[in-house]
Amino acid sequence: MAKAKKQPRPKAITPKGFRDYFGQEVTQRTHMLASIAEVYHHYGFEALESSAVETVEALGKFLPDVDRPNAGVFAWQEADEDGQGDWMALRYDLTAPLARVYAQHRNELPNPYRRFAMGPVWRNEKPGPGRYRQFYQCDADTVGTASMAADAEICMMLSDTLEKLGIPRGDYLVRVNNRKVLNGVLEAMGLAEDDPKRDDVLRTIDKFDKVGEAGVRELLGKGRLDASGAYIDGVGLADHQAEPVLAFLTSKGDTVAETMTNLRAAVGDSAVGAEGIAELELMGSLFAAAGYGDDQVLIDPSIVRGLGYYTGPVFEAELTFEILDEKGRKRQFGSVAGGGRYDGLVKRFTGQEVPAVGVSIGVDRLLAALREKGRLAATPTGPVVVTVMDRDRMADYQAMVSELRQAGIRAEVYLGNPKNFGNQLKYADKRHSPVAVIEGGDEKERGVVQIKDLILGAKLAENATLEEWKERPSQFEVPRGDLVAKVREILASQTGLASQNDSQDG
Amino acid sequence: MAKAKKQPRPKAITPKGFRDYFGQEVTQRTHMLASIAEVYHHYGFEALESSAVETVEALGKFLPDVDRPNAGVFAWQEADEDGQGDWMALRYDLTAPLARVYAQHRNELPNPYRRFAMGPVWRNEKPGPGRYRQFYQCDADTVGTASMAADAEICMMLSDTLEKLGIPRGDYLVRVNNRKVLNGVLEAMGLAEDDPKRDDVLRTIDKFDKVGEAGVRELLGKGRLDASGAYIDGVGLADHQAEPVLAFLTSKGDTVAETMTNLRAAVGDSAVGAEGIAELELMGSLFAAAGYGDDQVLIDPSIVRGLGYYTGPVFEAELTFEILDEKGRKRQFGSVAGGGRYDGLVKRFTGQEVPAVGVSIGVDRLLAALREKGRLAATPTGPVVVTVMDRDRMADYQAMVSELRQAGIRAEVYLGNPKNFGNQLKYADKRHSPVAVIEGGDEKERGVVQIKDLILGAKLAENATLEEWKERPSQFEVPRGDLVAKVREILASQTGLASQNDSQDG
Repeated sequence: MAKAKKQPRPKAITPKGFRDYFGQEVTQRTHMLASIAEVYHHYGFEALESSAVETVEALGKFLPDVDRPNAGVFAWQEADEDGQGDWMALRYDLTAPLARVYAQHRNELPNPYRRFAMGPVWRNEKPGPGRYRQFYQCDADTVGTASMAADAEICMMLSDTLEKLGIPRGDYLVRVNNRKVLNGVLEAMGLAEDDPKRDDVLRTIDKFDKVGEAGVRELLGKGRLDASGAYIDGVGLADHQAEPVLAFLTSKGDTVAETMTNLRAAVGDSAVGAEGIAELELMGSLFAAAGYGDDQVLIDPSIVRGLGYYTGPVFEAELTFEILDEKGRKRQFGSVAGGGRYDGLVKRFTGQEVPAVGVSIGVDRLLAALREKGRLAATPTGPVVVTVMDRDRMADYQAMVSELRQAGIRAEVYLGNPKNFGNQLKYADKRHSPVAVIEGGDEKERGVVQIKDLILGAKLAENATLEEWKERPSQFEVPRGDLVAKVREILASQTGLASQNDSQDG
Repeated sequence: MAKAKKQPRPKAITPKGFRDYFGQEVTQRTHMLASIAEVYHHYGFEALESSAVETVEALGKFLPDVDRPNAGVFAWQEADEDGQGDWMALRYDLTAPLARVYAQHRNELPNPYRRFAMGPVWRNEKPGPGRYRQFYQCDADTVGTASMAADAEICMMLSDTLEKLGIPRGDYLVRVNNRKVLNGVLEAMGLAEDDPKRDDVLRTIDKFDKVGEAGVRELLGKGRLDASGAYIDGVGLADHQAEPVLAFLTSKGDTVAETMTNLRAAVGDSAVGAEGIAELELMGSLFAAAGYGDDQVLIDPSIVRGLGYYTGPVFEAELTFEILDEKGRKRQFGSVAGGGRYDGLVKRFTGQEVPAVGVSIGVDRLLAALREKGRLAATPTGPVVVTVMDRDRMADYQAMVSELRQAGIRAEVYLGNPKNFGNQLKYADKRHSPVAVIEGGDEKERGVVQIKDLILGAKLAENATLEEWKERPSQFEVPRGDLVAKVREILASQTGLASQNDSQDG
């Protein structure tokens, strides 16, 4: 008889560029988002959760074309009666949906509208190492006000948020710059608003972080050899023309007043430049009035990221402590959040200019930073495992687990095949369980239980002397009635051994 | 000169079948999910967050066909070099991704694997009133064990979860039934495993909730007239053949022992029926050992939902209190969670049968129930609003807001155009602000602030007598230094007026 043709089995794989998050990866992020939400809410911001799906029309930016409707986003066409419905897409950020929501509900929403949003976004891009096509964003924006108090508030909120997440003053800094000051500098250089060289200068400024003052000077002039030996053409400005840019980038003084004096020199008599400086000064006075120091929020014109995109104040939060990179070299961790003021958010929909300012926190980068600094547990803590010595006495084991749970102790009974006891301990190991409970027939008869300290046991197995083994037993026999008390005692003694494990391990 | 042709503006609308969630809707759900996660975690379950996107192949169930690849799901084809990449889709539940994850990672995951997952899922279905194409699921499953202890654990966890969410004993009940008992009943009726009438009987049993005992009797026999006057054909069983089904459905006695006796009679000498009864008895003994009473978890063979889908124990959590429906009639709120044991979860991928049991909580229904019972705030509480009387003194107002925030009070400064003071109070109203703070030039000079109790103010405006107006002023002048203390005092007095507002309002 011929064998029936087998249906091939589906492959159990994550789609390319996507990944799964397990256990502690999920709970640590959830706790971080909850902490951030608490600060945002405390500042008067309201939660908004828009749907993951938007019409491509409302999403803007990526409009469908016939050949490749999904460039940059994941998009599909709805099947209506004719099979030719609207194009839909997964949101690629949280700002485009905010614009749609604000335009749609502007008559019911309070004005100004402070809102925060957190959740996954999707990018249809080529995945790379550590670069996924689904990732979290965590934004706060104030829509409908041109007041610098809104910008200042968001900077201070960012400072509060980082401190709330356990990053002490000194380990972070929120730096503030202003696009209008840069516009003033461009004016002072004699570059008119429509001069194509403006974009070249902006692109060069973006490299300040990497190439420094001398590099920017070369790139604004004739060009320079880069590290690989290739020659990079310069913008072609005369030396004296490049001066205002360099004065701007290096204008940070020892005090805010000094910085302002330097900036005034850099913008010359440009009106927009003066406006930008006034905005920075106003923000500085609001920081001071609210009690925020230079070690929390700092006016710093060397911050250039986002200057091309934003229209007024620009800010960035950096972690200033050093970590070791993949090659073991010390480097600063760098930026974990950024934002600024932008226009035209809602104009596409309504025709009206609506001013807005917002910030976005890179939650995954921040989690990575806290893990590297040992401020988040690297290994999870599992539940207490009650092992099963006698399959018919599951009710006894279940009763122990219930007692432990009711005492607030995370616990479970072993649910696999109990025949091989070694497998039960291997399971407890895999779960990173702190304690195993054992009650065989003999123990049952004598009214006792065995309680095994698995953390201490592993520690002793690793590097204890014979004396230590004898002195510090890792297994205890206690009366059945003392089960909860003894487990609690062991767990308390372990928090000393692994104190980093309990804070954010939910 | 001819006008330049205008680009039509995009429409600012949510896609059909999707919606936005604002403020309290989001925070109340977030808090509920956090509470549920806490209980699940306490029981030893580990969080899992799989990506929203799966390959259609891995997702199964909905396979793409040429004409309509997205029936039931939102699906699209990846554009590879030839424009003919894999089909991808948004997950339609959290169980299909669990199967994929378990098959993919089974060698690294602990076995048995207890996991919980919560997040949105998407259905490409015709939207209706209250039916959305994106909604939340909240699941816990134990994969890799046939032990009834796993099923019992999930039922007890469900009971704990509902109590943790503020639903007291007596207002809910977790009912347990078993598919194998029903199989035994079908055997006792003389319907072989491949008898097509089995499906007819299952479909009829599903209507027990609606048509009751007499209705089921008619539907198993010749048929019946339904409420609309249409005649529904029956299964065509003889009267005596229908008896075991009815005995099964009505077998619930005053005690578990009585129920078991009734069930034994219903399944006759069917081996699978006896197995199902033994499973129910074992679960009953585990509930008792762990201290769960009949008012929390109850063996109840009248629960039939899901009996067609699951393979062993089936359970359902119901809210037993009455609410008023949209027509003002009293009705029981009904089911808010359900689950059971199922096979073949992973078999599609690996060929191996892996037993599993799980539960899914209907978070949105549960939120609706708690709101209807007044156990969740119906109206949100906004921040304290510091109004702006003098645009040039923003730093003063900012300082007040900072003081309030640092004292743990949710507060904000008004960021809109301050010219029209009425607009500021309207704004505070729209925000549901409890308190407004006012400091004009006169107050500044005298070193005082005005503090307006907006909740009391609204209450007095509604129904106060002239005497009450005089006796209970809703606006107070206090020294600037007493700002925080006075605001705190007013907020405390308001919690009496609206005590339901602070619990889950985040």
